[in-house]
Amino acid sequence: MYQIDHLGIAVKSLAAAKAIYEKLGLIVSAEETVEQEQVRLVMVPVGESRLELLEATSPDSAIANFIAKRGEGLHHVCLKVQDLSAVVARLRKDGVRLVSEEIKIGAGGHRYVFVHPASAGGVLLELVEG
Amino acid sequence: MYQIDHLGIAVKSLAAAKAIYEKLGLIVSAEETVEQEQVRLVMVPVGESRLELLEATSPDSAIANFIAKRGEGLHHVCLKVQDLSAVVARLRKDGVRLVSEEIKIGAGGHRYVFVHPASAGGVLLELVEG
Repeated sequence: MYQIDHLGIAVKSLAAAKAIYEKLGLIVSAEETVEQEQVRLVMVPVGESRLELLEATSPDSAIANFIAKRGEGLHHVCLKVQDLSAVVARLRKDGVRLVSEEIKIGAGGHRYVFVHPASAGGVLLELVEG
Repeated sequence: MYQIDHLGIAVKSLAAAKAIYEKLGLIVSAEETVEQEQVRLVMVPVGESRLELLEATSPDSAIANFIAKRGEGLHHVCLKVQDLSAVVARLRKDGVRLVSEEIKIGAGGHRYVFVHPASAGGVLLELVEG
């Protein structure tokens, strides 16, 4: 039912971060900018999952704030689920804290929510339907 | 060639951390203690990969130090590779910094190395052969 869709990794320099994965022999996608999230990113497919390398495009973006506070590194884990509405209903019933109350719609039309790190052992957990 | 073998997540309380994944409907393994790493852990299978929840068994362990410095959260990413010796040779040639110079042998007989976060965009990257 579940699968790791991707791991979000906050980096200062996309060019420098891409280099390590290219040295490992992995394929790195073309760069893409997501205006609403103020990030420039590349994807690195790894088996059924992907690494998402994230560079801030604005100094007051979530990724820039994260790096200022914690340094570069793992930012979030995204799990793919089949029925997001059912999962969110169960989490609400169990008192799990979500970052936003509503399911959001991403750029590609996919549905997602974030579980707050306080409810997930310090991990920012994204749940995406797919 | 590559696959995400597991994500290591440093937590203060294994019991509390297990609860969130059980609420998501995931299966959590029995607890296991790894003396040489001073951790108690459970595995949470997710698709072809796993989440590894890690609780320190000693206040001077790597996991306890990590939590003291950065708080609970993602600790390392482990990628599975087919020929670890070949990958390590290529990384050395490219000047990538490893945490230890030699390939180590884990409890289950598996071969592994850690790439230093300074060479991997702030991510502690474990490479395991399998």
